[in-house]
Amino acid sequence: MNDLFLRACRREPVERPPVWMMRQAGRYLPEYRAVRDGSDFLTMVRTPELAVAVTLQPVDILGVDAAIIFSDILVVPQAMGMTLTVEEGTGPRFHDPLRSAGDLDRLREVSPEEDLRYVLDALRLARTSLGGRVPLIGFAGAPWTLMSYMVEGSGTKAFTRAKRFLAEQPRSAHLLLERLAALVGRFLAAQVAAGAQAVQLFDSWAAALGPRDFREFALPYLAESVRLAKQAGVPVIAFAPGAGWALEEIADRTGADVIGVDWQTDAADARRRLAGRPVALQGNLDPTWLYGEPSAIRDRTHAMLDAFGGVGHVANLGHGILPDVPVAHAEAFVEAVKEWRRR
Amino acid sequence: MNDLFLRACRREPVERPPVWMMRQAGRYLPEYRAVRDGSDFLTMVRTPELAVAVTLQPVDILGVDAAIIFSDILVVPQAMGMTLTVEEGTGPRFHDPLRSAGDLDRLREVSPEEDLRYVLDALRLARTSLGGRVPLIGFAGAPWTLMSYMVEGSGTKAFTRAKRFLAEQPRSAHLLLERLAALVGRFLAAQVAAGAQAVQLFDSWAAALGPRDFREFALPYLAESVRLAKQAGVPVIAFAPGAGWALEEIADRTGADVIGVDWQTDAADARRRLAGRPVALQGNLDPTWLYGEPSAIRDRTHAMLDAFGGVGHVANLGHGILPDVPVAHAEAFVEAVKEWRRR
Repeated sequence: MNDLFLRACRREPVERPPVWMMRQAGRYLPEYRAVRDGSDFLTMVRTPELAVAVTLQPVDILGVDAAIIFSDILVVPQAMGMTLTVEEGTGPRFHDPLRSAGDLDRLREVSPEEDLRYVLDALRLARTSLGGRVPLIGFAGAPWTLMSYMVEGSGTKAFTRAKRFLAEQPRSAHLLLERLAALVGRFLAAQVAAGAQAVQLFDSWAAALGPRDFREFALPYLAESVRLAKQAGVPVIAFAPGAGWALEEIADRTGADVIGVDWQTDAADARRRLAGRPVALQGNLDPTWLYGEPSAIRDRTHAMLDAFGGVGHVANLGHGILPDVPVAHAEAFVEAVKEWRRR
Repeated sequence: MNDLFLRACRREPVERPPVWMMRQAGRYLPEYRAVRDGSDFLTMVRTPELAVAVTLQPVDILGVDAAIIFSDILVVPQAMGMTLTVEEGTGPRFHDPLRSAGDLDRLREVSPEEDLRYVLDALRLARTSLGGRVPLIGFAGAPWTLMSYMVEGSGTKAFTRAKRFLAEQPRSAHLLLERLAALVGRFLAAQVAAGAQAVQLFDSWAAALGPRDFREFALPYLAESVRLAKQAGVPVIAFAPGAGWALEEIADRTGADVIGVDWQTDAADARRRLAGRPVALQGNLDPTWLYGEPSAIRDRTHAMLDAFGGVGHVANLGHGILPDVPVAHAEAFVEAVKEWRRR
């Protein structure tokens, strides 16, 4: 069994850093597109056989050191009763976004074991199918990120509706975030019980908040979700892209085992700032660099690995892989990590 | 004459910090919408009487301490021959985006005095109309930001086409950025000759670049534009939202007199990091905080002013004012600055 990933998460000695890519089960793979062409996104997410098929593709095709279950962060609000559609081009959309405090009343109580059983079934099947080849990662969206989608209804540049909700109805926002933190924590623990050997929390819209709001509306709830997930006993990764300024606070407040580093943050700087803290780091190649030639990808990947130093580091991109990247370039990234040696 | 703004830019003693708002001539003002309803955006930009009418509105209505000429950063690529339209809802769009090195050949040489005369005429008229009440600010987009729009053709979340251009055709990118830096510098100098008493460079898409790319493709060209603009002898403001990590480098490399601070950056942190450097700071209230109640706006504005310390500080938002903010809330912000006193 290749357990490089789990050892790196625990900051144990490794022959080389493990490598995987956020959104590695994605459109850049022709094999993914073949599955996707035959069924819509949410059907793939809800059908364990399909979800597991694409979960395993990057392990088989690229030789990454970890599999992450194919799913979506928005399954949680969907389980709470919100109507979700995902259309090609426009992305995910809730048809009944939350706009007032009263709207919170229509959110259902969720039992992850029942209402999100399809995710847990996919994890069980993926774990069996992997047969121990590489570890399996579960994941969930962090409370602030889920709330911002629930209020906006769809992706947006500025998240003004969600931020307006914080400004105008802070008390309701805190109540919703509390509910989400508890649910996300239970969901992650259920994922571990179903076979996930590590879990990652994505606070994808952390960048929508300035420092004061991040500390009030995002960080405490990310921390609570991490705390609950950690009780399941596997490594927990916290990733808040766009909040690179907060790496120390995220490490100290959440107690996560691994801190994700986005591509906007200088790798050497991140390492220096978190030195001495009991955390591993994950990241952070700029995903658009995979547009470059394989030789340039290798050079930049090696520079990134040098900067992180090779211990307590999970090599990854600093954001999800882009859908129009050539597979050969993704391969060049994975190979570059595998051939690198600590100086 | 109210010269608080110019004194603060030069870090001279002031009774109180001056205040203005990015995008202060904008849709949140009914008086702006009245002008806008009668004519499309680009006509307003190209008609000095209309541009000046809305330029003066925030001075008359809100009592801000500086006027910024109503215009758009995309007038520069338009003058280079690119076809620009601005539609309600979808925003600005170039119909003939640059996609290959060969596309650069169709860009025209620009004489700001001739091809952008309408901006200079608007500045001359605004300066006269202001009659010395408050200083007049000119502006331009920084080279990387202009290039990213020219390649993308429209706004985008990830700027993958523009970043793909950098990865695949770095040499052509540098040639284009060099041309833009020279042109932007000349344009800003022409604005000063036409009456601008300070100029601001907006590197609005700095956040699309990680540290390495920012240092290679944005910062040197922002610096060259600032250098050329500074020869005109007025304060130059450099604002690169989303690149808060780079404040020191922006100050050191560009030589700008004033460094804009975005709302994602902690104000006290920005002040501490730039202490000892010969720069004033501008910013940085989170524009979405103007959704809150006036009493909350006052508290947060005072906290922001406390953090900057009152000397060498131009009070502003940390990004443009949002179109759906109540005027009374914008007024509360301006009033909060005016009533604040250094402790």
